[in-house]
Amino acid sequence: MIPLIYALPGNEAFAGALARHLVAETGHIETRTFPDGETYLRLLTEPMERDVILVCTLDRPDAKLAPLIFAADTARSLGARRVGLVAPYLCYLRQDSRFHSGEAITSTSIGRILSASFDWLITVDPHLHRYASLGEVYTLASRVVAAAPRLADWISRDVPNPVLIGPDVESQQWVAQVAKLAGAPWQVLEKERLGDFDVRISLPDPDRLRGRTPVLVDDIISSARTMIAAARHVTELGHPPPVCLAVHAIFSAESHALLTAAAGRIVTTNTVTHGTNKIDMAADIATAIAGLLRKE
Amino acid sequence: MIPLIYALPGNEAFAGALARHLVAETGHIETRTFPDGETYLRLLTEPMERDVILVCTLDRPDAKLAPLIFAADTARSLGARRVGLVAPYLCYLRQDSRFHSGEAITSTSIGRILSASFDWLITVDPHLHRYASLGEVYTLASRVVAAAPRLADWISRDVPNPVLIGPDVESQQWVAQVAKLAGAPWQVLEKERLGDFDVRISLPDPDRLRGRTPVLVDDIISSARTMIAAARHVTELGHPPPVCLAVHAIFSAESHALLTAAAGRIVTTNTVTHGTNKIDMAADIATAIAGLLRKE
Repeated sequence: MIPLIYALPGNEAFAGALARHLVAETGHIETRTFPDGETYLRLLTEPMERDVILVCTLDRPDAKLAPLIFAADTARSLGARRVGLVAPYLCYLRQDSRFHSGEAITSTSIGRILSASFDWLITVDPHLHRYASLGEVYTLASRVVAAAPRLADWISRDVPNPVLIGPDVESQQWVAQVAKLAGAPWQVLEKERLGDFDVRISLPDPDRLRGRTPVLVDDIISSARTMIAAARHVTELGHPPPVCLAVHAIFSAESHALLTAAAGRIVTTNTVTHGTNKIDMAADIATAIAGLLRKE
Repeated sequence: MIPLIYALPGNEAFAGALARHLVAETGHIETRTFPDGETYLRLLTEPMERDVILVCTLDRPDAKLAPLIFAADTARSLGARRVGLVAPYLCYLRQDSRFHSGEAITSTSIGRILSASFDWLITVDPHLHRYASLGEVYTLASRVVAAAPRLADWISRDVPNPVLIGPDVESQQWVAQVAKLAGAPWQVLEKERLGDFDVRISLPDPDRLRGRTPVLVDDIISSARTMIAAARHVTELGHPPPVCLAVHAIFSAESHALLTAAAGRIVTTNTVTHGTNKIDMAADIATAIAGLLRKE
C-alpha cells in the first residue's frame, strides 16, 4: 500500500506537496483543544499496516510536542507498519552542552522523546554545533536533507553576478558549499572583539564585492541580529543592500521588520512557513522519504 | 540529606508549603523562553545524590510538559538519587478509551512519557473513569491523596446544617464518602433522558433539603455545566443557592462567572490555583511524600 501522510495543524500545504511528489495518500486528522486546555486528536484515515508519515515542523515547539506524540502513538496502536516524522525544521539542537552548571541539555531530552515515538526522522539542515550528527541525540533512523543545492539553484537563477557572504566563521563551510554549487565567489565576515560587549565585524576583502550582488547566506534566521549587523556592514561599505538568504525562517518577534529595514530581498525555504519563503524543499524531502522507505 | 523541592513556574507557593511541612529544601530553578520559542531551564541548586521533588500541577498541560521533562532529566543527569513528581492536578485522564475509531488515548501517551522521566508520582483525586487505578497508565510508583477528609473538615467547620448533593451518578461514591466524614445526609441528582439533547435532572428527595444548607460536591469543575444545572435545579425548588465545593478548580473560559451567577459560595482546594481556593492540600501531600520516600 502507498504511504499515508498526516499533517499536524499548520503543515497541510507541505504534507500535500510531499504526497504529490511521493505518490502517497493524504490522511485526515482531527485536532482540537478541549475547554480545559487538553488536546483531542483523532486519525480519521485508518493507518493499519500502512507506512505512516507525520509532517510537523518544530519551530515554537513546546505546545506542538504533545499532539505530535499523540498522533504517533495512535498510528502505532492502530497497527501502522512504521511511523516516521518529517520535521522540516528540527527544534532544540542549540542547547547541546551545559554552558553553565545545572543547565538542561534540552536536545537530549527531545531526542529521547521523539526517538521513543517514531521509527525514523527526516529534517533539513539541523543546526548541529557540537554534535557531529543527529545520531548523537536521536536513536532512530534519520536522514538529513541539505538545502544547499536548492539555495544555489535559486542564486544562479535569480541573482545576477552574486558574491556570497557568510555572516560568521560558523557559517564558513556552509557558505563555501553553496558558493561552489552556484559557481560564485564567497567570503566570511571576520569578528574582532573590542571588549566584553563590543564586537566589530569586517569583510576580509571588500573590493571583491565591486559590481556584484552581495548575498548573505545562513542556515537560520531567528533574532536576525547577525544578519542585520552583516547587512549594515555591507551597505556602510557603499555596496547595495544585500540579498539575505536562509534555510529556516524562524524570525522571532520584530526581527523580520528590523531585517527588512537593513537588507534588500529576504528569501528563505519553506521549512518554516513565512512570507519570505521562495524555495521549496518538498521534492528533496520526498526523495529522502522514498529512499528511507525503500531501504527496509 | 533532606529532600530538594523545585517548583515549575506558577507552583512556587505550593512547593513552599510542601517544604515547610516536610522539612525539605526549596531549590532554585530558572526558566525562560528563548526568542525562538524554545525553553531554557537551569537548576540553580545542585541536586547531586538528593531526593528531588518537582512540583507542577498539570491543568492546561501541553506547554508545561517540555519544561517539566527537561527539569526531571536534568536532575537525573546531575546525579539526583530519585526524581519524583507532585502534580496536585494530573492531566489527560479523561481520554481513557476510544469513544470513536482513530481517537488518541492520550492518557496512555502521557502516562508513558511521565513514567519515563520520573521515579514516582503523587496526585490528588485523579479523575479515573474507566481505569481502576493509576497503575494502569503509569508504570512508576504512585500515591493518590484523597481530598475527601479535607472537604469534610471544611464542611463541618464552615457550613451550618449541611446536606450534600452529588451532581450525577458518577459522583455517588465520592459524595457518600465526604458526607459520611462530615456526618451529613446526602443524595445524588437523577438524570432523565427526554431526547437526544434533552436531559432533566431531579433530586430524588427534595424535602430532605428543608432547613439545611445545600452543598454540591464534585471532584472537578471544568466547564461547570453539570454544577450550574444542579445549582439551578436546587434554587428552582425554592432552596437557597447551594454552596459549590470541588477539588480541582479548572474553570475553563467563562465557567466561573456563569457558576457564580447560579451558586452561593464556590470553594475549591489549591490543587489548581484559583480565586476560589480555600482548602489547603499541602499537608496531606507532604505526608504522602514522606511515606513514599521512607519506603525505599
